[in-house]
Amino acid sequence: MKGPLVECIPNFSEGRRTEVIEAILDTLRGKEGIRLLDYSSDKDHNRTVVTLVGTPEGLLAHLPLFIGKAKELIDLRQHQGQHPRMGAVDVLPFVPLRSITMEETTELSKKVAQKLYEELNIPIFLYEEAASAPHRKNLATLRKGQFEAMAVKIKEEGFIPDYGTQLHESFGIIAVGARPFLVAFNVNLATDKLEIAESIAKNVRHISGGLRYVKGMGVALEERGQVQVSMNLTDFTKTPIHRVFELIKIEAARYGVAVIGSEIIGLVPMAAMVDTAAWYLRTEDFKEEQVLEAKLME
Amino acid sequence: MKGPLVECIPNFSEGRRTEVIEAILDTLRGKEGIRLLDYSSDKDHNRTVVTLVGTPEGLLAHLPLFIGKAKELIDLRQHQGQHPRMGAVDVLPFVPLRSITMEETTELSKKVAQKLYEELNIPIFLYEEAASAPHRKNLATLRKGQFEAMAVKIKEEGFIPDYGTQLHESFGIIAVGARPFLVAFNVNLATDKLEIAESIAKNVRHISGGLRYVKGMGVALEERGQVQVSMNLTDFTKTPIHRVFELIKIEAARYGVAVIGSEIIGLVPMAAMVDTAAWYLRTEDFKEEQVLEAKLME
Repeated sequence: MKGPLVECIPNFSEGRRTEVIEAILDTLRGKEGIRLLDYSSDKDHNRTVVTLVGTPEGLLAHLPLFIGKAKELIDLRQHQGQHPRMGAVDVLPFVPLRSITMEETTELSKKVAQKLYEELNIPIFLYEEAASAPHRKNLATLRKGQFEAMAVKIKEEGFIPDYGTQLHESFGIIAVGARPFLVAFNVNLATDKLEIAESIAKNVRHISGGLRYVKGMGVALEERGQVQVSMNLTDFTKTPIHRVFELIKIEAARYGVAVIGSEIIGLVPMAAMVDTAAWYLRTEDFKEEQVLEAKLME
Repeated sequence: MKGPLVECIPNFSEGRRTEVIEAILDTLRGKEGIRLLDYSSDKDHNRTVVTLVGTPEGLLAHLPLFIGKAKELIDLRQHQGQHPRMGAVDVLPFVPLRSITMEETTELSKKVAQKLYEELNIPIFLYEEAASAPHRKNLATLRKGQFEAMAVKIKEEGFIPDYGTQLHESFGIIAVGARPFLVAFNVNLATDKLEIAESIAKNVRHISGGLRYVKGMGVALEERGQVQVSMNLTDFTKTPIHRVFELIKIEAARYGVAVIGSEIIGLVPMAAMVDTAAWYLRTEDFKEEQVLEAKLME
């Protein structure tokens, strides 16, 4: 695939019935301009997270069929699972990957939303960068109350959908929007004291005074007898992995605790790893185009 | 390009006459199964270094035309330049990039050599991994005496070419072979004392007791008033960039000298940068397939 490239990470509300999951995923396979990179289903959450990459045209062309198949096969009135949800396809975020700006990606998400509404007649919240008001940016705020409370909630001022006026009786409502790439990054500590991981998480995350694009919490790794600072880096181009890691090392040292290791969960853009290598090596004037694979993909 | 991928870095003996350089490069443009990634001509060296990537089939199909054009347009009897050379195309190394082993790449280099001999009737040394004897692995050993001494040298025992018996009067002789990817990596020091860079280079390079896949020397950066440890990393999969960099930091500290920065010259494989990032981040169980671009290229 040449030219602009966008990632799309649909989350749909089925993680148990294999034949339903496969039928929905089949709508994405072998299509021009999109590539199904990965998916993982969680039985407890009863939810499947899909990673797609495509051109803007490819995504616009093929996503309605995918959402339509989920609408046909999933009935939220019958759905139970640990993960909060409000739609058969719950959330549809778009992420700029290459040769496309955040503004253009936001426009794409709105175009897809309009097409979904016109072809499938489902109500839609625009969220994150596509949100129509600041209080509608955050997914958790929109989804609060979940499917069961939505029929009433979307009549309230401030929560009128961007498309549609009625909750769809079996599909529910979907959030469509654009956001930067999200890197799931965890740092493991040589202690079993959860309060130390919690304290470090508090110090490095944005909400409590830390780095702008870090969300985080302390987690106990029971089997390992260790604790972890578990994070989402919501914009690695502005808060890079290496800065987060080095800050955690410093915070851990204050407790006399060593950093055992780290984990990157799922996919990570090449730029995030290349930036990190270049920072540690103190490179002068290194350009991502020097990476052979980046040059090959031009 | 899907499947096995090989890099090829022909060096040809013309760095001044633009129309000749372009006519030779034109034989590589727009051809199925190869991609001209980069080239740079040096007037003092009177030499052009080309970076090609291709499938084994693409390289085998199109390299004879390229070498043939150089044979037609370059006459080594008229050639002068600072860089040592023995052929109109001086050296033709093949480097395994993806889904191909060193052994297979070596076989490819031999197949190309045979085809070049049959179609162009030029004599050929096989070198590096393709060499027919240990003393014939090193390019500098083969090239010693340069074009001017070759007619006699290739009659001597130990230097009979692998293909052909006579020096070509205008082309000379070419070295064809296979080797691992070579990373050009320099580290800049906060001192103008050349002997410190020379001493550090001596301590980290293989030949004088240092790391197995490092060649290096001290260089003065006159304009900056600094010195540099200038290196080739001849197999970054076994001697990775971060180990070289950290060892130089330690050696520099012994002189009380700070490491200012580093330079990666030209192209570098994604794996080299990803390994470096993963090492510094102390990742547990990170796999290159987690890099989104690597997954896209599968």
